[in-house]
Amino acid sequence: MSEAQQGGVARLRALMGERGYDAVVLRNNADLRWLTGAERTFDDEVAHTAVVTADTLLLHTDSRYYNTFMERLGPDGPWEVDMGRTPHAAWAARALASARACVAAVEDTVAVGFVDDLARGLDAESWACLMPRLHGAISRLRMVKDDEELALLRRAQEITDAAWEHIRSYVRPGMSELEIRAELERSMFEHGAEAVSFDSIVAAGPQGANPHAQPGDYRVREGDFVTMDFGALYHDYHADMTRTLVVGEPSEKQREVYDVVRRAHEEAAAAVRAGVVGADIHRIAQRVIEEAGYGEYFGHGLGHGVGVEIHEDPNFSLRWEEPVPEGSVVTIEPGIYIPGEFGVRIEDTGVVTADGYEPFTRLGHELESARG
Amino acid sequence: MSEAQQGGVARLRALMGERGYDAVVLRNNADLRWLTGAERTFDDEVAHTAVVTADTLLLHTDSRYYNTFMERLGPDGPWEVDMGRTPHAAWAARALASARACVAAVEDTVAVGFVDDLARGLDAESWACLMPRLHGAISRLRMVKDDEELALLRRAQEITDAAWEHIRSYVRPGMSELEIRAELERSMFEHGAEAVSFDSIVAAGPQGANPHAQPGDYRVREGDFVTMDFGALYHDYHADMTRTLVVGEPSEKQREVYDVVRRAHEEAAAAVRAGVVGADIHRIAQRVIEEAGYGEYFGHGLGHGVGVEIHEDPNFSLRWEEPVPEGSVVTIEPGIYIPGEFGVRIEDTGVVTADGYEPFTRLGHELESARG
Repeated sequence: MSEAQQGGVARLRALMGERGYDAVVLRNNADLRWLTGAERTFDDEVAHTAVVTADTLLLHTDSRYYNTFMERLGPDGPWEVDMGRTPHAAWAARALASARACVAAVEDTVAVGFVDDLARGLDAESWACLMPRLHGAISRLRMVKDDEELALLRRAQEITDAAWEHIRSYVRPGMSELEIRAELERSMFEHGAEAVSFDSIVAAGPQGANPHAQPGDYRVREGDFVTMDFGALYHDYHADMTRTLVVGEPSEKQREVYDVVRRAHEEAAAAVRAGVVGADIHRIAQRVIEEAGYGEYFGHGLGHGVGVEIHEDPNFSLRWEEPVPEGSVVTIEPGIYIPGEFGVRIEDTGVVTADGYEPFTRLGHELESARG
Repeated sequence: MSEAQQGGVARLRALMGERGYDAVVLRNNADLRWLTGAERTFDDEVAHTAVVTADTLLLHTDSRYYNTFMERLGPDGPWEVDMGRTPHAAWAARALASARACVAAVEDTVAVGFVDDLARGLDAESWACLMPRLHGAISRLRMVKDDEELALLRRAQEITDAAWEHIRSYVRPGMSELEIRAELERSMFEHGAEAVSFDSIVAAGPQGANPHAQPGDYRVREGDFVTMDFGALYHDYHADMTRTLVVGEPSEKQREVYDVVRRAHEEAAAAVRAGVVGADIHRIAQRVIEEAGYGEYFGHGLGHGVGVEIHEDPNFSLRWEEPVPEGSVVTIEPGIYIPGEFGVRIEDTGVVTADGYEPFTRLGHELESARG
């Protein structure tokens, strides 16, 4: 297990000590990826369970994944990997009973069915556990990224940047959003993406007014804005970037709105440093947009954390009225969406430093034309 | 709302009547997609909640999705869509208290944190609900596909078949698994996929011995088997297909193992019809593989249901010791995986009919050579 993962386990055990947890039971794949360091192992299925105590690291999986775990974790690592056919809750119950754990914390995201089964499994072992909810504690432990993680995030961004450079020269009038998306994702793979971070958004012309539009058959026209929100996944770490380009020449209004979004982004970014309150950064961007008269057209948070999950802690949003630590990785993504007309969003992902904010991208924020 | 979705709501209300549920609270995106018919709306985030009673259909979402819902559900449909900023559990609690629901069933997959918050929200309304777990009841309601769903599944398969025809002529020695995967997914998009069903598996040579391998830098060599497990997503319905091709000429052993897998597939498929026990179909394939001497190299279930989820009910596996209904859609995917050597898997997705099994693919099961 790498130094990074030893760090993660140490952070978790420190938390357990502070809170009096005898054990922690984990099912969330992002938490498991972070804790074990087993990259490209935890896919979409809820197929693994970990039980962590002060002195053991137990992982239960099934035979489909065993080979992959042995490659990643190695047979001599600190994790005991069990691939027996026992159902996960029964396995966890046995581990907790063996450890005589009385307090076994669980993630809030764990399925209620699993908690039910765990209680029944403990009863079958003539044992019982208190199961306090972690209330996002692991997500908070994951906030501060170490050097290994930052390197993976930067690599994911390099791939994303390369795909942007490609697509910028590819988009032309007559292309559909779906066609652009296919080429964008192919380009991410070509440049080394192991997967895409999420289904890429390509929203052109009036489609851009829907911040969550999915690519469709709309065909790009001269004068359209095209907003692309996409990112590459590399060793399970996500990139997330949005750029809005124009096909041909922008109108006065498009230029004006673009400029407002850019100023909102840059003023917010300039205010970031370790210890700032996340909600305050959101408010800075919101003020810029409101003062320009577009307040009703910006209705989402300014930014979210990024790591092994595409949305994690901390956040530049009204929900995060607390400091943002040094080493956390957060997006800045203001947008203005005018129904029936167009939308603009400019998003970077970057790391919070002692005295600033460093985006991972090497791209700037100028309005660019498609060069297709 | 289409006839299909009216059918889904009717099935759910019939279940509620049978079981004495005043309400059902749903958060799982697949269930919501199935029930509302709002295609291409429910993405990766847990961002929606539905409360269904005997006479109301309530949906809570947020402003990012509102435009999309209005397009799909229409302002005059039976669903009341609320995008207020109330947290989901509080919204659901208010809906349940207003309805004076005493018995509000929840999915086993719902987060334990949501159930906790729902209980607190009900208490804040000076109300309380029993929250029995559905134990997969919605997944069972989704088993029988109607004509609309079958049409979407067939369309997803057409796209998948087209991508196969392309990749079969594309693969050649020297290509890496990652390169093949990029081209395979681009081809699915080119042929109309709205997304991929899951991260495509491309496993060549000895990598094929890991049934859950993820594509990597391994470069295909003359004589390798290349196993590709992939599928297109169309209007949220999944395709899932696996084919193993050979690059050049197969060895004696490769031919033999391929033939065993093919026989296991075809004998199992021949035994399927409405009402067969799922586990029995698995056993048929298992017997063929064991009798050929490869029993220890086949360690997963024979097949899983497919629909709005890539893995759903029913199953051709030892876990499904009950009949499989007419109209259910299930995969058949036997495999043999020989560590250090190669692997083979042949998978179709098809519908269970009154007297048989109809794969959606138009492809056969013969061992094919890459034509690159």
